[in-house]
Amino acid sequence: MSVKRHYEREFVRTFFTSPTAVKGEDDSAKMIRSASQLSGMSAPDVWVPDNEDATAPSMRDEGVQNIVDVVSENGADFPGEIHPRMVWHRESPATRYQGFQHMLEIADPEKGAIQHIDGFVIPEVGDIDDWKKADEFFTIVENEYGLEEGSLSMSVIVESGEAELAMGDLREEMGKPSNNLERLFLLVDGEVDYTKDMRAMTPTGELPAWPELRHNTSRGASAAGLIAVDGPYDDIRDVEGYHERMRDNQAKGMLGIWSLTPGQVVEANTAPLPPKTGSWLLEVDNRSVELVEEDGRQVYDGDDVSLEETGDGYTLRVGSDEDELDDDELRETLLDMTAYVPSMDDIVDSMEEFEAAKEAGKGAIAMTQSTTIVIDGIEVEIRKDRMWDEATYQAAQTPITLFQDVYEHRPDQHNELAEMYGSDVVERATDVGN
Amino acid sequence: MSVKRHYEREFVRTFFTSPTAVKGEDDSAKMIRSASQLSGMSAPDVWVPDNEDATAPSMRDEGVQNIVDVVSENGADFPGEIHPRMVWHRESPATRYQGFQHMLEIADPEKGAIQHIDGFVIPEVGDIDDWKKADEFFTIVENEYGLEEGSLSMSVIVESGEAELAMGDLREEMGKPSNNLERLFLLVDGEVDYTKDMRAMTPTGELPAWPELRHNTSRGASAAGLIAVDGPYDDIRDVEGYHERMRDNQAKGMLGIWSLTPGQVVEANTAPLPPKTGSWLLEVDNRSVELVEEDGRQVYDGDDVSLEETGDGYTLRVGSDEDELDDDELRETLLDMTAYVPSMDDIVDSMEEFEAAKEAGKGAIAMTQSTTIVIDGIEVEIRKDRMWDEATYQAAQTPITLFQDVYEHRPDQHNELAEMYGSDVVERATDVGN
Amino acid sequence: MSVKRHYEREFVRTFFTSPTAVKGEDDSAKMIRSASQLSGMSAPDVWVPDNEDATAPSMRDEGVQNIVDVVSENGADFPGEIHPRMVWHRESPATRYQGFQHMLEIADPEKGAIQHIDGFVIPEVGDIDDWKKADEFFTIVENEYGLEEGSLSMSVIVESGEAELAMGDLREEMGKPSNNLERLFLLVDGEVDYTKDMRAMTPTGELPAWPELRHNTSRGASAAGLIAVDGPYDDIRDVEGYHERMRDNQAKGMLGIWSLTPGQVVEANTAPLPPKTGSWLLEVDNRSVELVEEDGRQVYDGDDVSLEETGDGYTLRVGSDEDELDDDELRETLLDMTAYVPSMDDIVDSMEEFEAAKEAGKGAIAMTQSTTIVIDGIEVEIRKDRMWDEATYQAAQTPITLFQDVYEHRPDQHNELAEMYGSDVVERATDVGN
Repeated sequence: MSVKRHYEREFVRTFFTSPTAVKGEDDSAKMIRSASQLSGMSAPDVWVPDNEDATAPSMRDEGVQNIVDVVSENGADFPGEIHPRMVWHRESPATRYQGFQHMLEIADPEKGAIQHIDGFVIPEVGDIDDWKKADEFFTIVENEYGLEEGSLSMSVIVESGEAELAMGDLREEMGKPSNNLERLFLLVDGEVDYTKDMRAMTPTGELPAWPELRHNTSRGASAAGLIAVDGPYDDIRDVEGYHERMRDNQAKGMLGIWSLTPGQVVEANTAPLPPKTGSWLLEVDNRSVELVEEDGRQVYDGDDVSLEETGDGYTLRVGSDEDELDDDELRETLLDMTAYVPSMDDIVDSMEEFEAAKEAGKGAIAMTQSTTIVIDGIEVEIRKDRMWDEATYQAAQTPITLFQDVYEHRPDQHNELAEMYGSDVVERATDVGN
Repeated sequence: MSVKRHYEREFVRTFFTSPTAVKGEDDSAKMIRSASQLSGMSAPDVWVPDNEDATAPSMRDEGVQNIVDVVSENGADFPGEIHPRMVWHRESPATRYQGFQHMLEIADPEKGAIQHIDGFVIPEVGDIDDWKKADEFFTIVENEYGLEEGSLSMSVIVESGEAELAMGDLREEMGKPSNNLERLFLLVDGEVDYTKDMRAMTPTGELPAWPELRHNTSRGASAAGLIAVDGPYDDIRDVEGYHERMRDNQAKGMLGIWSLTPGQVVEANTAPLPPKTGSWLLEVDNRSVELVEEDGRQVYDGDDVSLEETGDGYTLRVGSDEDELDDDELRETLLDMTAYVPSMDDIVDSMEEFEAAKEAGKGAIAMTQSTTIVIDGIEVEIRKDRMWDEATYQAAQTPITLFQDVYEHRPDQHNELAEMYGSDVVERATDVGN
Repeated sequence: MSVKRHYEREFVRTFFTSPTAVKGEDDSAKMIRSASQLSGMSAPDVWVPDNEDATAPSMRDEGVQNIVDVVSENGADFPGEIHPRMVWHRESPATRYQGFQHMLEIADPEKGAIQHIDGFVIPEVGDIDDWKKADEFFTIVENEYGLEEGSLSMSVIVESGEAELAMGDLREEMGKPSNNLERLFLLVDGEVDYTKDMRAMTPTGELPAWPELRHNTSRGASAAGLIAVDGPYDDIRDVEGYHERMRDNQAKGMLGIWSLTPGQVVEANTAPLPPKTGSWLLEVDNRSVELVEEDGRQVYDGDDVSLEETGDGYTLRVGSDEDELDDDELRETLLDMTAYVPSMDDIVDSMEEFEAAKEAGKGAIAMTQSTTIVIDGIEVEIRKDRMWDEATYQAAQTPITLFQDVYEHRPDQHNELAEMYGSDVVERATDVGN
């Protein structure tokens, strides 16, 4: 038994928002209409018709209508979950009431949209009592239309200090009989408004990285059986930066991220999946350089490291440090400087190997990766051992479990996954660990 | 409606402590007497006659007398707020009782000081119940002298793990009818004692940076409508280090800092204000280098980046990386490497432009900065766009709101601000956003 | 009066686990038998016969028997404390019941082991109510065998988001009459399982650094009067990495760390103690280089900094930055670039000096370190002053208090400490500050 999740998806990679009503277009629903037709890797795990910040205040009533129209028409075929964002503000009863009215409107079963809607996203929540106000409106909506209590999931945008603190209370509050907070699903950071709420500033206006907020969101999700999602990455052109942010998030246990464009959706759907092929990294001055494979050997072709044979050993230069090393010392030094990024195939291999060992009564086994590193034409064989025990096995399993969750819930991505990895690997990856 | 602040200043840039009684001087009140006469940029937003750590234990009764003398004489003219620091310790009832007695003495209206005193600073607080003990003494003092309940504000020094945790409870505790914690004003980190309390150590004895403490203080202030202030920066000679710390704090929403000298007060009063002129930065290996303006062009004159024309394109070298780029790739690469630091004038411009767009019914507009970058004599035009929506607008507003708060409450700094920015910019900055 | 600690040791440097029963050996207790005979710097402050992850599930009943056998035989002579780790899981009543049964078995006084056992370690705890379940079993065990209530200490492994959050409640919960949580002793981070619980992942499978977790553990320990210990460092060969991690931990107030081998125990027992001799560091591009002492001068022999005399001053090059400086500017610049790491002797000197000054009625004095820096043959005298007041004194005292705690409780290490420092320094260090 683990922390119980009250929803189907165990992982959400992508949270994609679209404006519900755009002024000055022939069809104000244009953006959500096109979003509703996405599929495959361009379609998000969670699609959010956004009736809050992405839509002008004067267009929001029309936005509600558009949500109903588009979702009733295309919702049945949409491959991900659908969670429209409503208006809400911890400091404005008028905004909260408006959000409630919009939910009442969208959720009317006669309009044919709610059947395809998995829940609603509530922005700008405050302390836990404010979350309960929203939850109560969900309950009333469900009751009004004869929907099962708790069947609409609730996701929140964490964009205030109060909401950050509230995440520490979720586990305790979710059990109480006077609320239905078990409906909670995603905890999504909203760094722009959070920055405003915290009154933070940077010289260039760039958003602070807020590592503590992201940690606390991930921890709150972990403790309460929810899913943590990072906020939008504004610089749409900067694909490398988006990937760096996702890598940083993954190391915090925050595996999902907001996407602003279908292009970002593709990147974010792919990023948490293990790579097709493994690779070797050389760590130089706290930067990791990927080595280039040539005939099964890993070649370094940068300028920061050089290697020379001397009469009785080697001279290794790293930046401005120079060391005289014998054979063993060289191997040892390069071993410390290298790391291996396993492929999907490698991970599956290791898991299977460990499972077999466990069956045979062993609690821990050594996993080995070996290769030939080439620097300035000199070849050095290295061999990395890592002990795997039950805990290592389970920690390594995360990307595989995520892959399996994707595979189960997103048949529309099967082709692309098979193209990416080959069908063999996909099949083994869907089987392992079960 | 936003989180209600129960005090006048919305921002505090500077928290300046002075010893209340110095041994071996003709006038033991010398230090606070001279501090009480500061004005303009050398005068802090909050002045703290310090009857705790800065004053020897044997001199503290005399310190109380000196506070009364100096504040009753010069307090009316002091341009900032006055918040004397009393003795207190979560683990010593004797110290707490002494602090209470000192407050009773200073607050007696017949002595003529309390009329100019805005509140008291309580150091070494523990968990929330300890904060309440201090609050109760404030209430008794107020009641004893017929002052309005809650009229004396209370600031605390957070210098223990318990106090750090207590900041998570403030929002909830401040509403309770059995206390007057609404009197809270500043949450000030005290890193020296915090380091001792946490039993932390560093090889050189340098203080740890405590990023999590500062985050939690800023968050606590945000959630409870208080103001976060960082602790003292010991190395008074190190102006650049003080600025780096303030920049780091600002990105956390901690806009105030302790000052130990009038020189530090000037630096800390100025640091959160936008610069007079904008500037361009080039990011090289995670360091930002400011480009030099020459005839409207931005010139890089370092050695880490070089640019050369080849027959059909360019060779750009950054550190030891070399890339062959065509025109567009070069522009794109430099665009990624540059950032613009807007001036006060730029910020006001952008805000006005966005306000006009909003009035015209637009929810988001692109703000553009363009310039010519010069590297090794080669000119490259770049143009940075940034989308502004309501949230961006509000986040960008923080330095302007701070400026307006300063302008309203510190008429003694008007001349210096006009000199710094020019009267035009000052006038526009005081008007925008209202 | 400070936060009351309900146990003898004020500091724990080392937490060393050994498998309680190994399959396929003649003597399945081999590992704990040899560990039980460690002494001196190879013996940990806390030894943990590990009946959980280090021992295969099928061997754990035998492990309990082995603990009883080995501890009843060798426990009396073991120089550190003994805290066996039991099985436990917040999500498995069966595992919790098994842990309880194992404790009942080990604690039976007739078996002669419990007399030498200081407490038990409980892994995989959840929220505070889960901690209370474990505590209740301790109470029942104590009551069953006529042991004093609360006499068995309880340490926990923090390896879930819930447990991390629980540490914020300890101070409040420990006072309640319905539990005996005052028995708490160590808060130990378990990063492998924590990573799994948080569903975090990294490309290479390396563990995330989890700085916030370690901060929160250290803070939780500080607020509740407990001791914070970091989790295992897997790469046993990487001594330098282990030291870096310990330095990072120490700056967080987490002075203890898990050790997997007697070799790691030696490193971790030594790391928090001040060095035998002081040293000077030169900070270049955010890296600290230790200068080499030659005849009382501190010589830099790297390539990143160079210094040259010009006609009327100096050219100092640091990386690719070059500055023309006169005498004073050069001294000032080098002063900013250098730091001194005080020896045990230096710290004792400074403390004694401050104590004398305090006796003479001074609240603050300047401590000076001066030396001659040599770069490219050019000598520069520098002189660093640091103000010491009561707070500095107390913060600087941490390594000395730790040393004194070690000296009091680990007579088996006296010889090695005397060899390390000389008997004079040891004697002065045990006397100072008392």
